[in-house]
Amino acid sequence: MIKIAVLGYGTVGSGVVEVLDTNQSSIDQKAGQEIRVKYVLDLRDFPGDPVEPVLVHDFETIVNDPEVKIVVEAMGGVEPAYTFSKRCLLAGKSVCTSNKELVAKHGAELLAIAKEKNINYLFEASVGGGIPIIRPLNSSLTADEFDEITGILNGTTNYIMTKMSEEGLEFDTVLKEAQDRGYAERNPEADVEGYDACRKIAILTSLAAGQQVDYQDIYTEGITKITVHDIAYAKQMGMAIKLLATSRKENGRFYSMVAPFLLNEDHPLYSVSGVFNAIFLHGNVLGDVMFYGSGAGKLPTASAVVSDVIDAAKHQNRNIMVSWSSQKLELGDIAESRSKFFVRISGNADTDLGKIKEVFGDVKLVQVPEYKDEFGFVTGLMSEADYEEKAAKVPGILKRIRVEERI
Amino acid sequence: MIKIAVLGYGTVGSGVVEVLDTNQSSIDQKAGQEIRVKYVLDLRDFPGDPVEPVLVHDFETIVNDPEVKIVVEAMGGVEPAYTFSKRCLLAGKSVCTSNKELVAKHGAELLAIAKEKNINYLFEASVGGGIPIIRPLNSSLTADEFDEITGILNGTTNYIMTKMSEEGLEFDTVLKEAQDRGYAERNPEADVEGYDACRKIAILTSLAAGQQVDYQDIYTEGITKITVHDIAYAKQMGMAIKLLATSRKENGRFYSMVAPFLLNEDHPLYSVSGVFNAIFLHGNVLGDVMFYGSGAGKLPTASAVVSDVIDAAKHQNRNIMVSWSSQKLELGDIAESRSKFFVRISGNADTDLGKIKEVFGDVKLVQVPEYKDEFGFVTGLMSEADYEEKAAKVPGILKRIRVEERI
Repeated sequence: MIKIAVLGYGTVGSGVVEVLDTNQSSIDQKAGQEIRVKYVLDLRDFPGDPVEPVLVHDFETIVNDPEVKIVVEAMGGVEPAYTFSKRCLLAGKSVCTSNKELVAKHGAELLAIAKEKNINYLFEASVGGGIPIIRPLNSSLTADEFDEITGILNGTTNYIMTKMSEEGLEFDTVLKEAQDRGYAERNPEADVEGYDACRKIAILTSLAAGQQVDYQDIYTEGITKITVHDIAYAKQMGMAIKLLATSRKENGRFYSMVAPFLLNEDHPLYSVSGVFNAIFLHGNVLGDVMFYGSGAGKLPTASAVVSDVIDAAKHQNRNIMVSWSSQKLELGDIAESRSKFFVRISGNADTDLGKIKEVFGDVKLVQVPEYKDEFGFVTGLMSEADYEEKAAKVPGILKRIRVEERI
Repeated sequence: MIKIAVLGYGTVGSGVVEVLDTNQSSIDQKAGQEIRVKYVLDLRDFPGDPVEPVLVHDFETIVNDPEVKIVVEAMGGVEPAYTFSKRCLLAGKSVCTSNKELVAKHGAELLAIAKEKNINYLFEASVGGGIPIIRPLNSSLTADEFDEITGILNGTTNYIMTKMSEEGLEFDTVLKEAQDRGYAERNPEADVEGYDACRKIAILTSLAAGQQVDYQDIYTEGITKITVHDIAYAKQMGMAIKLLATSRKENGRFYSMVAPFLLNEDHPLYSVSGVFNAIFLHGNVLGDVMFYGSGAGKLPTASAVVSDVIDAAKHQNRNIMVSWSSQKLELGDIAESRSKFFVRISGNADTDLGKIKEVFGDVKLVQVPEYKDEFGFVTGLMSEADYEEKAAKVPGILKRIRVEERI
């Protein structure tokens, strides 16, 4: 039998306890031994809850108990999760977490401690919720070198974009509804400004590159400025607007970005709707591969955490993660990153398109018949810097959205 | 350094050599040591090919060389692949393969030998080509109990169905074109009759259940009878026809089947087009998850084989696969399996629908305006046996296709 502790009895922590209980016999079989919760740490009391007999309020009880071999950190946030995780690892206990913020910030250091102690720091649930992506990157897709990782990594924003598109509603309206339904936080900034997706793509890029990617270095643009007008143009082009988190390797450098993108309907991510997440990768020998599923939610996230617990149980005293060195990876300058740009501009195509072509070269005109005072166009492939320089010469630009196209 | 041997220098075998060469440095890094090909076994000579220095014609050279720790079996077919694989395992060499036929037939036995010898028999490439699915099932999705595995597991048939749908061409025409382009074999039976998909769903179901599923027990229906007429009705309903291989667990039993199904556009498998494969799973805590990618092809398949080689190198003298017992799993009787049925029938809806409703209960009428002498309808949920009994009472049925709907 292996004893575990769960730090935090919130959504994820209580989900972990529930999953371990629901699938107890198959989990024990796959782990090769019984897995039982010895402690749950929370500052709160839960009178009447089945967790009561194992509830403790003092972290020291857990870290000092040599019987506890695996600790689930389900507290969220950087502190005290970081200190607790580090102390558990130093005490020889494997740690499994869904905490993307902590992993993005201190993953390299915590992995190094786990390696030194010959135990494991596992974080399958930190990206893509229930979708297996960390372990496949680490142990399945090992024959490849990846030149693209692009994901829909935030269910809240994907739900909002899907709703805006399907029902023709503005951002604020859909956000409010999502908040009322519990799909969006009261303070939605981390989701809608792209910060959450940014941390997740930082983790994936760090793993793919084997070096530390600081999420602060990643250009991040949210969805708050996307309007029903933008979506009408997207539909006119047979495209969808999605918040993508993407890293592309060009000439030996990773270019990373979180931003709304226009996607063609033949892109595998086009049909990922609602709260679902998906991660698309391109490997140099494998070609395209995509993982799709529930990117959040109590039980899917807990399922991923428990799969880590099982893996930790199967690999006691044996480190399984590839190294993710704390040496900082210098990302490519986003100004050099290239894409096509969709632009909405005030004016009339008949009279103004000539000037635009003088500046941007050949562009593809897009018009939505209902919108009389503006029109849209799609540029050719150009760098961000090039776009900015050209855009400064053309007055009246209302919006620019990048177009995701397989280059 | 670890020395390996490759049995068979055909498409997959030569792909494995190419992938090991192309990504040599990153592969060595992930394996934690250098991986080098010591022998390639083939009966043919390859004058001038870089493989010449390592080419051997006698299997005994390989099986008797204690320096060879890992053997890639890329011969295909049951014999001599089975005998060679077994002898290698008995000699203490891990074996990696893409051979679905062999795995479906003798997987349980070969896994048991590997377990006894504390080495590994790995077959990631046997299902879904480059898509990681065996390892995720074995080591990522361990917290769940799966009640559904449904896949588009054959790229040739999916290419044919996609082409028929997009271009309105009949099966024979598209098959001939696919053969000319090298997407279909000259003898296409294994693909178009569903036999290939059948072996793959047998492997996935065996792994999910932990017991031997004999592929001969799986009801298998190919795509040869699907016509442009059928597809016109599908489009009328906003659906697509796909060859699915599916296992569902109901009341503790797996019901497995390979057959063409109608899919709604909100099903994750709906938009899997062309030669791509995808595997959709439903777990009791995870919910929906899907893996998508290149299901065949030289390099994607080789990528999966090489990922197994890396895993075998990382786990020398340590068995990592879950057991798949040779005890036979009794599948549920397909007559009890339930779905909705789409039916095309000769006649006129105005005069004949009444009688159909008398027999089938409430049905949904589907008409394609161009087809004057026939019409279609979709039944409610019923068992196969129930459908057969009712259908016998209604003359003039031209076709029935099952409707895949999340029950």
